Amino acid sequence: MPTFLINRNVAKDLLNMPDVIRVVEDAFRAWAQDRGNMPAKAYLVVEKGDFRAMPAALPGAAGMKWVSVHPNNPSQGLPTVMAVLIYNDPETGYPLAVMDATEITAYRTGATAAIASKYLARQDSHSLGIIGAGRQAYTQILAHAEVFDLRLIKVFDCSRAAIERLIKSFPSYPLKECSLEEAIASDIVCTLTPSRVPLVKKEWVIPGTHINAIGADAEEKEELEPSILREAIVVVDDLSQASAAGEINVPITRGLFTIDEVYATLGEIIGGEKQGRADGKVVTVFDSTGVAIADIAIAKLIYDKAKQAGSYMSVDLV
Amino acid sequence: MPTFLINRNVAKDLLNMPDVIRVVEDAFRAWAQDRGNMPAKAYLVVEKGDFRAMPAALPGAAGMKWVSVHPNNPSQGLPTVMAVLIYNDPETGYPLAVMDATEITAYRTGATAAIASKYLARQDSHSLGIIGAGRQAYTQILAHAEVFDLRLIKVFDCSRAAIERLIKSFPSYPLKECSLEEAIASDIVCTLTPSRVPLVKKEWVIPGTHINAIGADAEEKEELEPSILREAIVVVDDLSQASAAGEINVPITRGLFTIDEVYATLGEIIGGEKQGRADGKVVTVFDSTGVAIADIAIAKLIYDKAKQAGSYMSVDLV
Repeated sequence: MPTFLINRNVAKDLLNMPDVIRVVEDAFRAWAQDRGNMPAKAYLVVEKGDFRAMPAALPGAAGMKWVSVHPNNPSQGLPTVMAVLIYNDPETGYPLAVMDATEITAYRTGATAAIASKYLARQDSHSLGIIGAGRQAYTQILAHAEVFDLRLIKVFDCSRAAIERLIKSFPSYPLKECSLEEAIASDIVCTLTPSRVPLVKKEWVIPGTHINAIGADAEEKEELEPSILREAIVVVDDLSQASAAGEINVPITRGLFTIDEVYATLGEIIGGEKQGRADGKVVTVFDSTGVAIADIAIAKLIYDKAKQAGSYMSVDLV
Repeated sequence: MPTFLINRNVAKDLLNMPDVIRVVEDAFRAWAQDRGNMPAKAYLVVEKGDFRAMPAALPGAAGMKWVSVHPNNPSQGLPTVMAVLIYNDPETGYPLAVMDATEITAYRTGATAAIASKYLARQDSHSLGIIGAGRQAYTQILAHAEVFDLRLIKVFDCSRAAIERLIKSFPSYPLKECSLEEAIASDIVCTLTPSRVPLVKKEWVIPGTHINAIGADAEEKEELEPSILREAIVVVDDLSQASAAGEINVPITRGLFTIDEVYATLGEIIGGEKQGRADGKVVTVFDSTGVAIADIAIAKLIYDKAKQAGSYMSVDLV
């Protein structure tokens, strides 16, 4: 029996954002209803970086994403983050596919935030603020444009080059360079920086804003002033990951926020167990850390499409 | 940069037991001297079985073995256990190779037991008792034959067919079918069964015997009467794995053995931190649960050989 090999280009060709949003939303729902399983990540630390094993299972799908994070890589012309995913048949354990997971991760992060915005942002949201014009910005824009009628996308970054690259990539979208404060004055804000100081000031956040806090993914990282969280409806993708390494991790460590103040998980909101936004005035925050459940849902989508299209290499591996 | 694909046949062709024994012994030594890193396994449980992520790093090597265990597979013509290993450059995280890890696991288990025997069995050991003539028996015999001058290999199994297959596979080795009691009356004994009752009785164990207890690899599994452990020098590959799922797990749960009674880890013995066998009369037991450190050491061996020989497929994966 062959194992499919799906490289980065093939994965990218097979992915499209509407499908990704659909399967990721289904995955969060299934997981909240105990039809999915996601053990804690296992971390392997080496001198120059670390590796993370992210296993997960959903109805009809199982597998593991193996992610490397090596901050000095760009000096050698390699990306900081690389990921390979092994996709298995949950019935037999057979390794159905080995695939690059770089695009999966980017699409998953964009789709998850747009789903959070769908449930938490005001329905009449038309402006999107992008704080940080790096790689993550692309899939945030792609995903939000599927869910909202975006009339203005305000982009802030310290690097002019990054802003210009991003604007050039979306010639038919209404992107505009802005100051940090202007970008935050949007219906939906996505923070996408590796910041270790809270760059989003509470005074800049307009009532009724929804914020996707994406950047903080490790201890000591934070992008929002903790006072924003205190008054907001805070929703997380996974409570243990968020409290350990998400936007809420620093405020929790400093005693400025408690786990009990988290309103719900995204799965609970999607599944209808908890209500989303109560009114047009409250600020909502989605703390995104990235969950393997979503990666595996997208891996299944890619595998099924590759099989149907015949667009794969294969090898008799095991 | 290409990622090597090394399937089961290529892996098997590249492996030879003397090299495997050497790199596994080095890996245990490095690990005991804090030059290796092995986080706890992450378990993903699904309806029909489970998956285990086994990450590890050694000097110059890092990676993760992803193992599936699905007990009903043989009824569908698939093996119960399958494994894929991702082998990475620890300096950059780059996925250098994706390889089948079935042969790696088999060779690693045989090599580890033979290394334990080298340090714990009497040097004049000439007889080997094999309890359980399944897949594991092959690499136990191969590995022990590298380390000892074996004049008699006594084989016990409930299945005549399994015994005959094993004997036929080693036409030039001194294999002989025996009763359980006879097989246990050997200088070195390897127990290789999935037993949940202690099938090795204390009264059958001759003073000076070394036992490699391999079969117990999950809660509720045990092969030796706990009274054997009480009077023996007990050495483990990994203390936390052994106490949770190795030969000592059931006796510990029942209060018949304590973690404090474990004499040493194999790495401590190899590194000279603890002495091996004290005299010719004591019984020694090695509790083997299987460590990812050894898998990664063998993956490095395979990768280096494949690269040198040019005997690999490759793909631009990430």
